[in-house]
Amino acid sequence: MATVSPTPLLKDELDIVIPTIRNLDFLEMWRPFFQPYHLIIVQDGDPTKTIKVPEGFDYELYNRNDINRILGPKASCISFKDSACRCFGYMVSKKKYIYTIDDDCFVAKDPSGKDINALEQHIQNLLSPSTPFFFNTLYDPYRSGADFVRGYPFSLREGVTTAVSHGLWLNIPDYDAPTQLVKPLERNTRYVDAIMTIPKGTLFPMCGMNLAFNRELIGPAMYFGLMGDGQPIGRYDDMWAGWCTKVICDHLGWGVKTGLPYIWHSKASNPFVNLKKEYKGIYWQEELIPFFQSVALPKDCTTVQKCYIEISKQVKAKLGKVDDYFNKLADAMVTWIEAWDELNPSGDISAKIPNGASK
Amino acid sequence: MATVSPTPLLKDELDIVIPTIRNLDFLEMWRPFFQPYHLIIVQDGDPTKTIKVPEGFDYELYNRNDINRILGPKASCISFKDSACRCFGYMVSKKKYIYTIDDDCFVAKDPSGKDINALEQHIQNLLSPSTPFFFNTLYDPYRSGADFVRGYPFSLREGVTTAVSHGLWLNIPDYDAPTQLVKPLERNTRYVDAIMTIPKGTLFPMCGMNLAFNRELIGPAMYFGLMGDGQPIGRYDDMWAGWCTKVICDHLGWGVKTGLPYIWHSKASNPFVNLKKEYKGIYWQEELIPFFQSVALPKDCTTVQKCYIEISKQVKAKLGKVDDYFNKLADAMVTWIEAWDELNPSGDISAKIPNGASK
Repeated sequence: MATVSPTPLLKDELDIVIPTIRNLDFLEMWRPFFQPYHLIIVQDGDPTKTIKVPEGFDYELYNRNDINRILGPKASCISFKDSACRCFGYMVSKKKYIYTIDDDCFVAKDPSGKDINALEQHIQNLLSPSTPFFFNTLYDPYRSGADFVRGYPFSLREGVTTAVSHGLWLNIPDYDAPTQLVKPLERNTRYVDAIMTIPKGTLFPMCGMNLAFNRELIGPAMYFGLMGDGQPIGRYDDMWAGWCTKVICDHLGWGVKTGLPYIWHSKASNPFVNLKKEYKGIYWQEELIPFFQSVALPKDCTTVQKCYIEISKQVKAKLGKVDDYFNKLADAMVTWIEAWDELNPSGDISAKIPNGASK
Repeated sequence: MATVSPTPLLKDELDIVIPTIRNLDFLEMWRPFFQPYHLIIVQDGDPTKTIKVPEGFDYELYNRNDINRILGPKASCISFKDSACRCFGYMVSKKKYIYTIDDDCFVAKDPSGKDINALEQHIQNLLSPSTPFFFNTLYDPYRSGADFVRGYPFSLREGVTTAVSHGLWLNIPDYDAPTQLVKPLERNTRYVDAIMTIPKGTLFPMCGMNLAFNRELIGPAMYFGLMGDGQPIGRYDDMWAGWCTKVICDHLGWGVKTGLPYIWHSKASNPFVNLKKEYKGIYWQEELIPFFQSVALPKDCTTVQKCYIEISKQVKAKLGKVDDYFNKLADAMVTWIEAWDELNPSGDISAKIPNGASK
């Protein structure tokens, strides 16, 4: 059996957000780790369906009717029939931290055979600093048994606040449809015992399967875009959020970590269905990466909301000509921020006193 | 016993460069891996001392008298009484690739208990591409069992040529004197099974203990500076080379990898002696990092030599005021390039046909 810390870290300061269309039997395996925490379940698809949650979990559940009722016309910014709907959970949470996980992700084992408490590792990642300004060759210098190596400037050793902890996946890797088609049998069996900061100025593909973040700091940037029903693409929700988030973290001086913890990703999604969802994204991302690499945020963008609105303007100005979809997306980005601020009325979250008014 | 490939990779295209002041008994442990290769031994300190090399190795050895004889007045650019002298070996090599290792580094074991063939792993790193323009969360996408993840632009999946492979150390980590003093008992026991590209625009602390590079591509940038005898600092030789090299690789579009392979670093150097060598460097590096982060190389710097001369000018202009040492160093950088071109007369190495005229 797994060893669990006697007092779960951040028990009253973190919500677990799960988007789903099915009964949440997968929670049984996570019970030793998740049961002390509050869950926010975002039910996708048919709102008349009943989602069963195993006994003993503390949760709130929102279906499409709830989202429409709570957000009114602004509900248009929340995707339907796509796991992008999860970002609604970020918005209604009142906690400082979020962990989000897919319902086909199970507890992985470390090389010694011990169950990995993914949530605890994410919390440790979020509570220790990041080092985006210079690369440490022994990876996370704040881990036990590690430090900054010779040649690392001392002035940078305090690090900066960590905003995002991006975890990885054993078994089914997070491949796009073409790679799935080419390598249907490839499994990720390599356990890399590392956590690292993604350097400032470097973009990465953020996967939403196993992801934690400081909602109070960066929450308003964690919009998963317009995907799924009625939209020309899918499976770019987390990527979009990751690119926006990274650019804003770089601008505001916060860190993004990737590496541990691993979860066990049980089932590859259908590559043919994925290809249909992805094919425009595969083409568009060739324009999106240079776009995000060149986004410059002015100095007066001092909050996440201001940064995000500025990015939405640049999306409209520069990506609108790639496809009209990006004009719609840019409008939805503004709607998202309006809805966020409505549900989180204390103003700019990033300006709050830590551990303060959001409770 | 270790398993060794029947045909050693790049047997006639790689030199192993070893700086030393003592008998090379450490080579016994490396025999299964190094014996097929040619060694270039750079003897530091007293040239009248005889360095014993175990039987059966193919080597050439240079002491200070040889360096003075070969370079004449230009020998002033090669450090004395400091392992920085190793860069003389890079200059006299006629091979395409260099592997350099310290004589207190031994064969490490992987988690399965198998001896690690560090040289073979370095060669694999150098022969596979790098991905400096976008971060892959599953690390090196070219390793077996790995690939590019969802969201990685297809246009970037061919990667770029790898110029440098930076290996790591188990047991004694490469810490500076203050960290050695504070954590005398810390040992690196974490085997991280990863190789990764250091992103474009990100600087790192390059350690010369376990390092391989494509000499034909980047050799002229691998100058280890003025250290040791008669100089105000030591232990910044590899750092200096790393900062110059990274800036030039970024400019010319080549990759730098770090991670595997590990060697076993046997013995911590004396932290009090190290502190004496380092203390000015610890102060100066606070200026050096912003300097290298801001170096801009003009478009007409199309060869490593041109880039390097340009950096030397900027060193003089911007770091000369930090300390007069940097004026001397800037002059030595020019001397180094002159000496390099004299010993490698076919012109700009980077312009040569691969596998071509340097043999």
